Amino acid sequence: MRPPTTELSPTQRSAALAHRDGFRDAPTKPANLAAMTHFDLETDVLVVGYGCAGAAAAFEAASTGAQVLVLDKAGGPGGASALSGGEIYLGGGTPVQQACGFDDSPEQMAAFLRAALGPGADAQKITLYSADSVEHFHWLADRGVPFKPSLWDTPTWVPPTDDGLMWLGENSWPFTELATPAPRGHRPTAQDFGGKLLMDVLVSAAESAGVTARFDTVATNLIVAEDGSVAGVRARRYGQEFTVRAHRGVVLTTGGFVDNEQMLAAHAPRLLGHTKVSAGADDGSGIRMAQTIGAAVRHMSTGQVGLSLIPGFAARGLVVNGRGQRFVTEDTYPGRIGQAALFRQDLDIWVILDEQAYEDVPEPQRWGVQPTHVAETAGELGDLLGLPPGALAATLARYNEFASRGADPDFHKAPRWLRPLTPPLAAIDIKAGVRPPGQTTARRGTGASVFTLGGLHTTVDGEVRHLDGHSIPGLYAAGRASAGLHGEGYISGTSLGDGTYFGRRAGRAAARHA
Amino acid sequence: MRPPTTELSPTQRSAALAHRDGFRDAPTKPANLAAMTHFDLETDVLVVGYGCAGAAAAFEAASTGAQVLVLDKAGGPGGASALSGGEIYLGGGTPVQQACGFDDSPEQMAAFLRAALGPGADAQKITLYSADSVEHFHWLADRGVPFKPSLWDTPTWVPPTDDGLMWLGENSWPFTELATPAPRGHRPTAQDFGGKLLMDVLVSAAESAGVTARFDTVATNLIVAEDGSVAGVRARRYGQEFTVRAHRGVVLTTGGFVDNEQMLAAHAPRLLGHTKVSAGADDGSGIRMAQTIGAAVRHMSTGQVGLSLIPGFAARGLVVNGRGQRFVTEDTYPGRIGQAALFRQDLDIWVILDEQAYEDVPEPQRWGVQPTHVAETAGELGDLLGLPPGALAATLARYNEFASRGADPDFHKAPRWLRPLTPPLAAIDIKAGVRPPGQTTARRGTGASVFTLGGLHTTVDGEVRHLDGHSIPGLYAAGRASAGLHGEGYISGTSLGDGTYFGRRAGRAAARHA
Repeated sequence: MRPPTTELSPTQRSAALAHRDGFRDAPTKPANLAAMTHFDLETDVLVVGYGCAGAAAAFEAASTGAQVLVLDKAGGPGGASALSGGEIYLGGGTPVQQACGFDDSPEQMAAFLRAALGPGADAQKITLYSADSVEHFHWLADRGVPFKPSLWDTPTWVPPTDDGLMWLGENSWPFTELATPAPRGHRPTAQDFGGKLLMDVLVSAAESAGVTARFDTVATNLIVAEDGSVAGVRARRYGQEFTVRAHRGVVLTTGGFVDNEQMLAAHAPRLLGHTKVSAGADDGSGIRMAQTIGAAVRHMSTGQVGLSLIPGFAARGLVVNGRGQRFVTEDTYPGRIGQAALFRQDLDIWVILDEQAYEDVPEPQRWGVQPTHVAETAGELGDLLGLPPGALAATLARYNEFASRGADPDFHKAPRWLRPLTPPLAAIDIKAGVRPPGQTTARRGTGASVFTLGGLHTTVDGEVRHLDGHSIPGLYAAGRASAGLHGEGYISGTSLGDGTYFGRRAGRAAARHA
Repeated sequence: MRPPTTELSPTQRSAALAHRDGFRDAPTKPANLAAMTHFDLETDVLVVGYGCAGAAAAFEAASTGAQVLVLDKAGGPGGASALSGGEIYLGGGTPVQQACGFDDSPEQMAAFLRAALGPGADAQKITLYSADSVEHFHWLADRGVPFKPSLWDTPTWVPPTDDGLMWLGENSWPFTELATPAPRGHRPTAQDFGGKLLMDVLVSAAESAGVTARFDTVATNLIVAEDGSVAGVRARRYGQEFTVRAHRGVVLTTGGFVDNEQMLAAHAPRLLGHTKVSAGADDGSGIRMAQTIGAAVRHMSTGQVGLSLIPGFAARGLVVNGRGQRFVTEDTYPGRIGQAALFRQDLDIWVILDEQAYEDVPEPQRWGVQPTHVAETAGELGDLLGLPPGALAATLARYNEFASRGADPDFHKAPRWLRPLTPPLAAIDIKAGVRPPGQTTARRGTGASVFTLGGLHTTVDGEVRHLDGHSIPGLYAAGRASAGLHGEGYISGTSLGDGTYFGRRAGRAAARHA
């Protein structure tokens, strides 16, 4: 969950300007290499987009000795990564996990990810990502990303502390039955949101490795040779067009398409109308440029769904649908609740709690959220919410009976969170939004903040696959411009995680390409 | 719901042969017109695929005087259309509706379709389809499709009679609140499945209009001119390659992609592993050929889900999920139950009934389905099914209380179907399958039969849209090779309905094209 922003950041302002520059309507069709008489710029590896995947790709390519240029639409690097919470999904026995007393293995990590990111997750990528996760931890640490070896132990979107490790659903049902639980959410040492710190470190590392960048620059078309290989891009900066020859490869790290309403309508209509989690530039341009030369995509209908739902309330209370039924394990990773709420319950949900549940959540973790409805009995509360008669009372009676026995056979909430709820009772309408620390008003909306997970179909080395199955020579992608690890499911940390990991692999592969 | 077939039809045998011929692995990349020195065949309009959309397109193009050639992979015409139940979604006041005493209007029809086929349904197509629906009825009738003016009045997949009109969810909640109910499922007069009759009529009409066809023929590549327009196809028959020049246009009516497991894995992983509803040739070849020249697609994740669930049992009983909860209005169009079961409940569902519910369904409508579990009480039945303790008993007690009062505030099942269920109780596992009349054994599986709804993005005239938004000159599509009317939802009759209606429009548009 991101805090509402009342002012545009420099990155956002720049993206807004780029919008006015018309990049949404830019032609995406390929330009023909044979028709080019000269190039304005030349490089070995060209990276389009300077978020986490672009920075990782650029660093690794430059580290092999290749000349690397990065283009970004915004006025500086960072993209959506810099606005994120900073969680990176890592495991298999990292030093942080070990310091916190957790055993883990690549096999258990992969088993969890296959279940949490599916159906349709990329099993081959998950196996490799899990096997290399400790190495990837050290790569991040060696670049200068700090991880404090301490655990935040309760369900949350982002810990309100600088703890470096958190659970992302591994200790919740059904995953407890599928893999040995270990917390794998690693986050840079930062109060609140760590994405900015992560990007500062990665961009600094890239610059030190010799990477150069051009900002306020929109890549509009791929330049393609007669044999189908990608040779560079056409781009535009403040209305001026220019060409870039990439002798070894082009890496698309342009992000997803949550800012492109036409693409949402065509592929992911359920994501329309909610708050967009992006820096304003996730317009799918990289995906479309590649598609015009026959690139394949995967899972374009899928998305992350962040809710203005306080996980501490949910874990201590109930989450019910419009029929007053429970439908999800309340103490799981809250993004999992979000996907279930939007894709399975049409966002028709309520959080139910009693006074103690409210009081048990420390004030800073409440984010200013207060009950929207209060009543003396479950029956009255259900009536207030417009639920079918008696439905909430029946659900609560059943839950309370289980809670008093310390076991929840319906949704297997952990015993730690089971306690009978006693009247008076309260409900929270997620549409009422949150009031982050330091702000005086909540932001109303649908209660959901979304971004897309689908994108280009890539090999484990970031090669973009053609519809025919072969890799398109000279074209690479990583981050949310690709589908990455993901099938339909999502876990925080897999975006920055697969963005940096497969970004690195794409950068190295592009630098190797003849 | 299709009956299991124990022997391959000639169409299926031919498709199986075509598989061996390797069409799945055929290159889909466009061929260059400029490189062609001659063409083996020439025509004005080339239609690829001889199902309902292809037949309608071919007839209409030929009726304008254009020369029309149809290619099909199979040994004869028909495709998946010929294996279907034959329902065609028509309304707005057709003679059959009027004869059965129903008022209807294009506006009410469109309001229902927007709700039933969404989110993401094509509102512009729905408006046009509804406005022209009476005309389209007459077009079908004039070709020779017989519709008996009598109503089958209970929920079913396919009426066991020759009644020409049926409900497809219009009289079930929530649609009763969104549009004035009128039955719009029109079916050719046939005992059981009417798809074969429909295709016989349409193919006969096309032949009479001068359409010629080549069977056992796989279109492998589009032939594209320098300006991006489509000029014909390369094709293969029994291993021999040849070229076809289409002077006015190519119409792709190649069907969906349920037979292509790679495409399912990339776009619709939840549809993997179930019975495929096709004639064996829905390999997505037309969609992929068009995509390689930049064609846009829509809603590739969506699908129809037919269950081996007897609607008469469901309407008279309960449908519950793995927590023993109801989740859908049981007397709705059963395909809607199917989508809810697969996409929202992971197919973890049970049908619950009592003896009277079973006996009230006439024997021929039971399709040989028998209870898989029987118990003296709801508690015992829930235990047998592995449901959480007490869950089924609580659900049944709640339902029985509502039923005794004649109103269902949870899911608004119509009063007609509300009756308290009394022990002993029975459950049906949909995975046990059905035993169609005349067969002695049921076919086990997942209990679901699926086909894809997503496909090429087309205009109302069947023009295939490029990713950039413009129409690709000379390229048309209709039927399940296009997304047609559909967003995420589906109603029987909208496949044959939009296939024939937009097939006609595509055929006329192609014939007009210079």
